[in-house]
Amino acid sequence: MKQAKLFTPGPTAVPTEILETMARPLIHHRTEPFRDAHREVIEGLQYIMQTKNPVVLVTSSGTGAMEAAVVNMTQPGDKVLVTVNGKFSNRWSLIARRYGIETVEVDAEWGDPVTPDQVERTLDDNPEISVMFTTHSETSTGVLQDVAAFARIAHDHDALIVADGISSIVAHPVCVDEWGLDVMIGGGQKGVMIPPGLAYLSISPAAIAKMGAGRQPCYYFDLMAAIKSAENGDTPYTPAITLVLAMQQAVRMIREEGIENVTARHAANAGAVRAAVTALGLELFASTPSNAVTAARPPEGTAGEIVNTMEQKYGVKIAGGQAKLKGKIIRLGHLGCYSRDDMQTMIGALEGALVELGVTKEIGAGVDALRRSYEESGS
Amino acid sequence: MKQAKLFTPGPTAVPTEILETMARPLIHHRTEPFRDAHREVIEGLQYIMQTKNPVVLVTSSGTGAMEAAVVNMTQPGDKVLVTVNGKFSNRWSLIARRYGIETVEVDAEWGDPVTPDQVERTLDDNPEISVMFTTHSETSTGVLQDVAAFARIAHDHDALIVADGISSIVAHPVCVDEWGLDVMIGGGQKGVMIPPGLAYLSISPAAIAKMGAGRQPCYYFDLMAAIKSAENGDTPYTPAITLVLAMQQAVRMIREEGIENVTARHAANAGAVRAAVTALGLELFASTPSNAVTAARPPEGTAGEIVNTMEQKYGVKIAGGQAKLKGKIIRLGHLGCYSRDDMQTMIGALEGALVELGVTKEIGAGVDALRRSYEESGS
Repeated sequence: MKQAKLFTPGPTAVPTEILETMARPLIHHRTEPFRDAHREVIEGLQYIMQTKNPVVLVTSSGTGAMEAAVVNMTQPGDKVLVTVNGKFSNRWSLIARRYGIETVEVDAEWGDPVTPDQVERTLDDNPEISVMFTTHSETSTGVLQDVAAFARIAHDHDALIVADGISSIVAHPVCVDEWGLDVMIGGGQKGVMIPPGLAYLSISPAAIAKMGAGRQPCYYFDLMAAIKSAENGDTPYTPAITLVLAMQQAVRMIREEGIENVTARHAANAGAVRAAVTALGLELFASTPSNAVTAARPPEGTAGEIVNTMEQKYGVKIAGGQAKLKGKIIRLGHLGCYSRDDMQTMIGALEGALVELGVTKEIGAGVDALRRSYEESGS
Repeated sequence: MKQAKLFTPGPTAVPTEILETMARPLIHHRTEPFRDAHREVIEGLQYIMQTKNPVVLVTSSGTGAMEAAVVNMTQPGDKVLVTVNGKFSNRWSLIARRYGIETVEVDAEWGDPVTPDQVERTLDDNPEISVMFTTHSETSTGVLQDVAAFARIAHDHDALIVADGISSIVAHPVCVDEWGLDVMIGGGQKGVMIPPGLAYLSISPAAIAKMGAGRQPCYYFDLMAAIKSAENGDTPYTPAITLVLAMQQAVRMIREEGIENVTARHAANAGAVRAAVTALGLELFASTPSNAVTAARPPEGTAGEIVNTMEQKYGVKIAGGQAKLKGKIIRLGHLGCYSRDDMQTMIGALEGALVELGVTKEIGAGVDALRRSYEESGS
C-alpha cells in the first residue's frame, strides 16, 4: 500500500519541484545567496497578496503568526472585536484572552459567515475598540467571509483590522492594499504549497504605528525587529532556511502560472467539487463557501468511515471535522497545486467510499457532475 | 565554483541521509505514522540528553525555545539570575527584561566562563531568586560552562536551573537527570544535524510544578500544552513535519553510532582543531573550550579576510565573530556530522588562507598538528 496523497486543507501536497529543493546541501542564512532568496520570497508574497506593505516571515505555524499579530497589535487593557464562527476564528479569542485583552465576540453559526452589519453594529456600540481580528477563510468549516467589507467598516470606526488569510491566500484573490487589511497572515503549508513551519504577515503603516505606540511584551515574535532585519534581507533569529528556499521555488511557480490563473484554477476546482458533492447527495456545509476547502455533511455517523475508507482503499487523505464538528463533516481540500485530474481522483475515491458504505448506490454521479462543472466554467 | 560546505557552529552541514528524507512526499501530522515518528524523536532526544523528563518540540529557532522557557518559568515581578559571558547568554537577559523580570547578571569576560563561586555568592546574596538561566556552550565565544555545578548550587538555594544546551548537546555528554537540569534547551540545526526550524526542551517535574503555579501569558509557546499533546504523540499546533521526520533520521544515526562515540568523536575533532590552530600561531579565545566550536583570535584586522578567503578559495564556510567580537575572532565549527577528513579539509583551508594573507609563511604546521592530535587521542 503506497502512502496516501494529501487532499487536506493544509498541509497540502507538496509539488515535486519544491520537495527537490529541500534535499539540497544547506546554505548559511547570513550570506548573500540566502538574503537574495529571502528577498525574492518577500517580493513574491507581496505579489500574491497584492500589497506594497512590508512582509515578514516567522519560523512557526500559522498559530505563531496569529499570536505575533495579537501581541504586537494590542496592549494590556485593550478591547478588541473578534469574529467567531469556527475553530480557527475562535483561536483569536483564546490568544487575546490569554493576554488579558477584553474581547467582544461577534458570532455566527459554524457554517455561516459573520455579516458586515453585525460588525458595524458592534463597532457602533463599542467605540473604544481599537483592532478587529477576523478570518478570511475559516478552515474548520470552509466558510469565506467578506474581509474587504469588514476593513471598510473597521476603518470608518477608527479601528485597524487583522485578518487570518492562512487558507484563503492563493485560493482567492487577496487584495491587501485595495481592501485595506492592516495585518494579513498566511501559512506556508497552505496555498504556498511548502511543508509546514513558516508563516508570514503583511503589515500596514498604520499597524506599524500602532505597534510603535505600545504593545505586549514579546521577543521571538517582535514584528518591528523582523521588519527592520528584513530591510537587509535578514531575519532576527535563525530562520527555517530550507523552508525559505522551498518558498522561493513556490513563489516562482505561482508567478509563472500567474496569480490570476492560480486563483481561477482554485475557483474552478472548488466549483467542480461542490457540484460533485451535491450530486452525490451530500449537504454542503458552508453557506458562503471558500475555494480552499469544501466541507460537506454526509449521513450521520458516516463521516469518520468515509475519511478512513478514502485513505485506506484509495490512498486519498482528506480531513474530517474538528472540535464540535468532529465526526459530523468531511473536508475535501483543493488548496494548493491540484489539477482537474487530482479532483477527479479525489471525487472518484469519495464515490467509491460512499458506495462501499451504502450511502449511495450509483457510481459515477460525482465524477459526471465534476466534469460538467469544468465544462461550464470553461476550464 | 561549487557551493561552500558549512563548518559553522549551527546551522551545521546536513548529512545526505537526512537531506534525502526531506524530499519525500509530505505526510499529515494528525496520523499514526507521524505520531510514531514524533515519539521516536522524543525518545531519541531523551537518550541523547540522558533524561526521563518529558521532552517537547517547538517549531521555532532556539531563541523561540529560550523565550518559551522564560515565559513558562517566570511570573511578572520574579527575580532571576542570568550568567552572561557572550551574545547568546546575554539573550537570556534581553528576553527576561522584555517581560519585566528583574535580572541579576553574573558576568565573565567574553572568552571566560562564569565560575560556580560567583553563582554561589550571588544566590547567597539574593535568596528570593527562583530560577537561574545559564548557557552550557556559549556559541559566540566557544566557552563551556560547568552547568552541573551550577545546578547543584541552584538546588541548594531552592532555585531551579534552565540551561541553553543549543550548541553543547551531542558535542558534550549532557546528563540532564544526573546533573539536575530543570529545563534543557536544544536546537535541531546544531548537534542533531537537521536544517533549522525545530527546537526542543526537556522539562523536569519541579519545572512543571513551577509552571503550574503561575507564569507569563503565552499561547504558541505554552509548554504545558505541549507536554499534554506529546503524551498522545501530537503537538498543539501544526509542527514542521519535514523537520520532525529529518530529526527521526538524525536520532537513528546518533543511536547507531552511540552517543558516547558521538561525543568522543566531537572531543577528538575539537582537540585536534585546537592543536592545529595553536600550531598555526593563532590564539585560542576560550579559556574553557567547548567541543562544538573553536574560537581563535588571528592577528588584528585579518579575521574577516580569513573567513572570506576560506569560503571563496576553498569552499569552506566558517563563522566570524558576533556582536563585540565582530572582526576580531574566527569560529571553526565541529558540531555535527564531521569526520577526521572534514577537519583536515577545514584546517587545510585555514592554512591556505593564512599563507595567502601573509599571516603564516610555512604550510603544513596546522595539518601536522591535527594529525598528531588524532594519533595521541587514539582516534
